[in-house]
Amino acid sequence: MNPHQKQVDLAKAYRLLNHGPTVLVSARHEGVDNVMAAAWCCALDFSPPKLTVVLDKATRTRELIERSGRFVIQIPTAAQLQLTNQVGNHSLKDAPDKLAKAGVELFNIPGHDLPFVQGCSAWLACELIAEPHNQQAYDLFIGEVVGAWADDRVFRDGHWHFEDADPAWCSLHHVAGGHFYAIGDALKAE
Amino acid sequence: MNPHQKQVDLAKAYRLLNHGPTVLVSARHEGVDNVMAAAWCCALDFSPPKLTVVLDKATRTRELIERSGRFVIQIPTAAQLQLTNQVGNHSLKDAPDKLAKAGVELFNIPGHDLPFVQGCSAWLACELIAEPHNQQAYDLFIGEVVGAWADDRVFRDGHWHFEDADPAWCSLHHVAGGHFYAIGDALKAE
Repeated sequence: MNPHQKQVDLAKAYRLLNHGPTVLVSARHEGVDNVMAAAWCCALDFSPPKLTVVLDKATRTRELIERSGRFVIQIPTAAQLQLTNQVGNHSLKDAPDKLAKAGVELFNIPGHDLPFVQGCSAWLACELIAEPHNQQAYDLFIGEVVGAWADDRVFRDGHWHFEDADPAWCSLHHVAGGHFYAIGDALKAE
Repeated sequence: MNPHQKQVDLAKAYRLLNHGPTVLVSARHEGVDNVMAAAWCCALDFSPPKLTVVLDKATRTRELIERSGRFVIQIPTAAQLQLTNQVGNHSLKDAPDKLAKAGVELFNIPGHDLPFVQGCSAWLACELIAEPHNQQAYDLFIGEVVGAWADDRVFRDGHWHFEDADPAWCSLHHVAGGHFYAIGDALKAE
């Protein structure tokens, strides 16, 4: 157990996603765990917190989510750049050792039968809100956030602290191919 | 006309949104133009390019989109921090001079009966794909991107060049209240 992992008030869970980071999506069904990267994940509502994520029909993670009805959205760090790119480029269908090869280590959170990825800055446990038309026509999945946690070295008191943290904690923002940007300077509007 | 505004290949339009910036949403109906800020906007498909955006029922921009069936998603810059925060915090319903007060200047693009915001780094002209259930239940709107443009001082050859551009061109990533982050360093995975 990472002693820095602290629960986040569900009313502030949207803040974990609001700045548009690329995420890791993980799921479990009948003993199979998988993790994929997704740039197309977005907050959808404040209370109860909801989010959307686009999951291609070719992905194994989508199958696990459709069967189990739950998933985790977690926010990888700049230190996890290679891991994030690798789980985004390889499928468990072709590479059964995908997670080990990418260096993914999973952990459990009591009360949630889900695989959480170690080393991330934040984790959102979600229950699928079934919307078959969206899923089939647009590959668009809606989740209700039922648990949220963050590492207090970079998110605490309901706010990100990228500006005070080691740059290795920066969120990743994917553009295309292996090209990403890290999150940058804090700006305050009047 | 800004001579740096160049058309973006629709196949690469998703790259304008992929890194998760906060956007400005604009729309026009029967002589009324409006602009609002939205952090909850996300790419949905590559070809034809589609996107999602969450529009609260209280917003005037949503009404204009529901009536006209079209809208613009544009990407504001760090230089537009105050403008972005202002159009996100005030409604045209209460402040008829909202756009002037926030310093918003609009321009036209031939062939598109839409208000585009000057000074942004990129613009996506969208046609609403009507999905009444999503709109009513989740405030979730889907648009098909029918035209895309970017300022070649920060996006050219299908790629963002934040690392070479003046920091004033950085995209904005909203967290909460007046708190934003600018996009940061480029990172390349192997």
